[in-house]
Amino acid sequence: MNMSDIIGKKRNGETLSQEEIDYVVAGYTEGSIPDYQMSAWLMAVYFQKMNREETFHLTRAMKHSGDVIDLSGIDGVKVDKHSTGGVGDKTTLIVAPLAAACGVPIAKMSGRGLGFTGGTVDKMEAIPGFQTAVEADRFIEQVNTIGLSVIGQTAHIAPADKKIYALRDVTATVDNMSLISSSIMSKKLASGSDAIVLDVKCGDGAFMENLEDASILGQMMVDIGNGDKKKTIAVITDMNQPLGQAVGNSLEVIEAIETLKGCGPADIQELSLILAGIMIYAGGKASNREEGYEMAKAALDSGAALEKLRQFVEAQGGNAAVIEDYSLFPQHTCQRELRSSQDGFVGKIAAKAIGLASQHAGAGRATKEDTIDLSAGIYLHKKVGDSVCSGDILAVIYGSDEEKVEKSAQEAEKAFVITPEKPKPELLIKKIIL
Amino acid sequence: MNMSDIIGKKRNGETLSQEEIDYVVAGYTEGSIPDYQMSAWLMAVYFQKMNREETFHLTRAMKHSGDVIDLSGIDGVKVDKHSTGGVGDKTTLIVAPLAAACGVPIAKMSGRGLGFTGGTVDKMEAIPGFQTAVEADRFIEQVNTIGLSVIGQTAHIAPADKKIYALRDVTATVDNMSLISSSIMSKKLASGSDAIVLDVKCGDGAFMENLEDASILGQMMVDIGNGDKKKTIAVITDMNQPLGQAVGNSLEVIEAIETLKGCGPADIQELSLILAGIMIYAGGKASNREEGYEMAKAALDSGAALEKLRQFVEAQGGNAAVIEDYSLFPQHTCQRELRSSQDGFVGKIAAKAIGLASQHAGAGRATKEDTIDLSAGIYLHKKVGDSVCSGDILAVIYGSDEEKVEKSAQEAEKAFVITPEKPKPELLIKKIIL
Repeated sequence: MNMSDIIGKKRNGETLSQEEIDYVVAGYTEGSIPDYQMSAWLMAVYFQKMNREETFHLTRAMKHSGDVIDLSGIDGVKVDKHSTGGVGDKTTLIVAPLAAACGVPIAKMSGRGLGFTGGTVDKMEAIPGFQTAVEADRFIEQVNTIGLSVIGQTAHIAPADKKIYALRDVTATVDNMSLISSSIMSKKLASGSDAIVLDVKCGDGAFMENLEDASILGQMMVDIGNGDKKKTIAVITDMNQPLGQAVGNSLEVIEAIETLKGCGPADIQELSLILAGIMIYAGGKASNREEGYEMAKAALDSGAALEKLRQFVEAQGGNAAVIEDYSLFPQHTCQRELRSSQDGFVGKIAAKAIGLASQHAGAGRATKEDTIDLSAGIYLHKKVGDSVCSGDILAVIYGSDEEKVEKSAQEAEKAFVITPEKPKPELLIKKIIL
Repeated sequence: MNMSDIIGKKRNGETLSQEEIDYVVAGYTEGSIPDYQMSAWLMAVYFQKMNREETFHLTRAMKHSGDVIDLSGIDGVKVDKHSTGGVGDKTTLIVAPLAAACGVPIAKMSGRGLGFTGGTVDKMEAIPGFQTAVEADRFIEQVNTIGLSVIGQTAHIAPADKKIYALRDVTATVDNMSLISSSIMSKKLASGSDAIVLDVKCGDGAFMENLEDASILGQMMVDIGNGDKKKTIAVITDMNQPLGQAVGNSLEVIEAIETLKGCGPADIQELSLILAGIMIYAGGKASNREEGYEMAKAALDSGAALEKLRQFVEAQGGNAAVIEDYSLFPQHTCQRELRSSQDGFVGKIAAKAIGLASQHAGAGRATKEDTIDLSAGIYLHKKVGDSVCSGDILAVIYGSDEEKVEKSAQEAEKAFVITPEKPKPELLIKKIIL
């Protein structure tokens, strides 16, 4: 086999065999296929696309390029949950305790944030003492003991995807459904859970900006997961405005705790209960999604899920006193209020712009090497549909660097659109793909 | 400017500005743009194509990436001639003396052969003592003295094209009209002549396999040349069987000499007179192509062109005695005869297969680093349309390595198709683009 011929074959619209795709992935990962051939191949894939089988082969090849985690030491149906990334998405911190409280073992690996989207690992590290680098033995033991562990993804999970993604990022070859879905699913399938619930974000602050694309991506990932004998369910959810009111690491953990106390924003609570309900169903603890939802709601109302969060934080070395005393979180040293200059309704809060503004306040990274300010972020006092009067606070920007916070406030201001009429509400849950 | 954005722009089908194309070519040539971004961009160009203006900008940027030869020290309209490459194409060795004998100054740079096509520089080196590496001063002086010099292309002509072509070759991004035409024309325009005659080969043994593609390429190159204020004319000619009867370096030089003696194969003589006639017209020495053709024919018949060849060989250090004594050429040490196993007509001689067989006999290179056997090649005793009887010699394969010659003969045999009926003749000249 010869990479030049394989590039030509894909360029001409032919279907690649499993052997050819394995050759590409293995050769690129080990270094025998150079970057310049891989990027030409990726651009050919961008234009000619991959069919269902090719996408399966690519996913499997990347999955097996590194460690495939063995979770057989954990009893029960392990359920993983993945979000394609949005702004203010702290649901993992809520749904994991909810599902675990209902008897579903959660042994999950999460990532860090990059650009305008945050990452669960960064958020968890806002809790003083919390450890996200945990050895495999301890990880499994913790799930067997308290039913829940979330740790950082190791470098040995799908290294092929890591290397290919870095190349796609600088060669304008990110936007392809097969490449996106195989990238996500190779990591999920290598992570060892038995079932996977995917939260596919859709809208201005998400990778997929419209429902059609989000549905294609969701369906493709469901097919890949089921094809690998993992029960996979995708939920397409709205990301046209940030989720909840908090954006930024400490702020989001506090909002997650508030939600588990029953005092969270309506959108966050509802989405968390729906996702947890699906996880409980996928884990075989409920006979359908509705029953799963009711079980999750009961775990919320009884405080069982909050108690599960406490056990989880303590098990990973975190100071669980943060649950009662938010002053134990990293504290900001400066803030800016953003006020409305007119009367009316909030017509739009551009999610991506808020994500970027939060990043620029210090909450996110432009490159993997950047350090983040865990105290930084944006708290939205108004959401889409809320009425506002001139002078009302729309949002407050927090951080530790006056200049950054000022710049962030200017950006955040542009994200708000005030309209004379109340806007039509967006559906939070747009579609469920089973 | 940012290469990642430029790749994305071309990928999305947008038109690139001159500044953007200059940035790509300069950045890649100097090394600030890595191979992997360039190959992704080239694949995007493959799919989205370039318009006329973009192709002009690309050509100009590559032309100016190195030396642009100044031929103003030579009086008269300097005319260059370029063939897109075929099998058995030794016309430069005939048309250059023909045109020069008619007063058109020829100051030409030629290339070496690669793969199944030969190169004029290799062919000239089959003449003992012939020098193809000539200093600029001597090159110009020789043209002023005898009206003709052909030398090897220096590394400083269009280095951007050299680097980009090497990358295209291994990333399946060769086959694009804009990339092909800008590659050829950047070198031609940097070589300093005032007019350019292009022989665009068309058929099985050429880069362009059909008339439509050859016409598009020819028109594009004519537009580029005229756009750069160089009178440019393209002739689309047949390459469905090898040109003439000789394929391989020494063999082809001998055939060129025979043609200048008036004893060459009909196709070679006719094509050479037509091309020389167009060059004489382009050089302002004839008022139209037909008059140019007649002048070339007169130079052939009078022996003036053969005399010009002799002066040319002597001026570049070659032993001109080869013109009378072919035994002075590098001699083969082994040969194989290929005989027909049936009666009928030669229906086809696959040009590319003969080119490859000649290469494998030792006449060509697989990579730039290979050395070639100047004595090796194939002499065709029958051409398409000739009648054959079982046992007739179809071709003889020459070389210096028994094993290679045997392998070559087996390949050459497959190139011949014997048919019961006489095939319809192909037109040698398919189109002229002025």
